[in-house]
Amino acid sequence: MRVLGVDPGTRATGWALIIARGNRSLLEAFGTVRAKGSDHPARLADLDRRFSAVVSELAPDCAAVESGFSGRNPKSGLVLAESRGVLLAVLGREGVPVHPYTPAQVKSAMVGNGNAEKQQVAFMVVRLLGLAEPPPSDAADAAGVALTHIHSRVVVAVRGGR
Amino acid sequence: MRVLGVDPGTRATGWALIIARGNRSLLEAFGTVRAKGSDHPARLADLDRRFSAVVSELAPDCAAVESGFSGRNPKSGLVLAESRGVLLAVLGREGVPVHPYTPAQVKSAMVGNGNAEKQQVAFMVVRLLGLAEPPPSDAADAAGVALTHIHSRVVVAVRGGR
Repeated sequence: MRVLGVDPGTRATGWALIIARGNRSLLEAFGTVRAKGSDHPARLADLDRRFSAVVSELAPDCAAVESGFSGRNPKSGLVLAESRGVLLAVLGREGVPVHPYTPAQVKSAMVGNGNAEKQQVAFMVVRLLGLAEPPPSDAADAAGVALTHIHSRVVVAVRGGR
Repeated sequence: MRVLGVDPGTRATGWALIIARGNRSLLEAFGTVRAKGSDHPARLADLDRRFSAVVSELAPDCAAVESGFSGRNPKSGLVLAESRGVLLAVLGREGVPVHPYTPAQVKSAMVGNGNAEKQQVAFMVVRLLGLAEPPPSDAADAAGVALTHIHSRVVVAVRGGR
C-alpha cells in the first residue's frame, strides 16, 4: 500500500510517500512544495499545479492529511485551511481517498501522548522507518501522518479480527 | 468594468457578475455553484471544475470575494475556508485579481452598519441594481460583495481627487 502523508502549510507543504508491506514501512520519497506567486490567489493556484504534479508522479493508493488546527491565531487557521482546501481538491480530482488526522491524533498515535512535542514525533518517524537521519521538518511531519494512518489500519484490522 | 462577486459557502457558492459603467451598476448574470461528490475532497474537486467553468465563461476583470468568517463554530469556519481556498486558486489560475471583503465590510458599505442584517443588504442590492425582484439569497450576497468593491473604488477615486 502506497500512503501519501501530507502536512499542509501556508508557506510550505510537506509530503512523504510511505510503502507499507506487512508490518514494515519504507520511506520511498519525500519533499516540500513551496508555492510561489505575486499574491495569495496566485500562490494557491501554484500550490494546485505543484501538488498535482507530485500526486500524479507518486500515484498513491490513499492519502493521510493533517487537518484541523492547533495554533492560537484563528486567522492563521483560516489561511492554512484555504491551502488545505486546494490540496484536498487535488486529491479529489486524482481520485485518491483521503483520511484526515488532527495534530493530536498524530502525536497520540506516534508517541502515545496527544500533547507530545513535534521533535518526539520526528524521533519516532526516524525510528519506525529505520532512517539514518531525520528528513526535513515538513517531510517528517508528513511521514508522521502517513504512519498514523498505517498504524490505525493495523489496529482496526487486529480489533476487527481480520 | 466587469466585477465578479463571490460568496463562498460549504454547500453553495453564490456568484454575481456586475458591470460598472460610470455611476451605474448592472447585474449581468448570477448563479449558484453546488458542488457534488461522494466525499469532501471529491466535492472540492467538483467545486473547482464548476467554478472554473463560470469564471472562464464570464471573463471578469476582477473578483470581490467574501472572506473571513462571522459564524460561531470554528470548525465550520475551517471547512468554509477550504472551499474558499479552492475558489481563490481558480481565480489565481485564471489571472483574475481578487479583492477580499469581510462580511462586516460588506454590511458597512451597503447599509452603513457592520452589524446589519443580511436582508438589509439584499434590499440595497435590489435598489442599487434597479431590480424588479431580489435574486436568490446566495447570489444577492455575492452581488453585495461586488457592489462593495465597486463603491470602495469610487470612494478611493473621489478621495484621491481622480
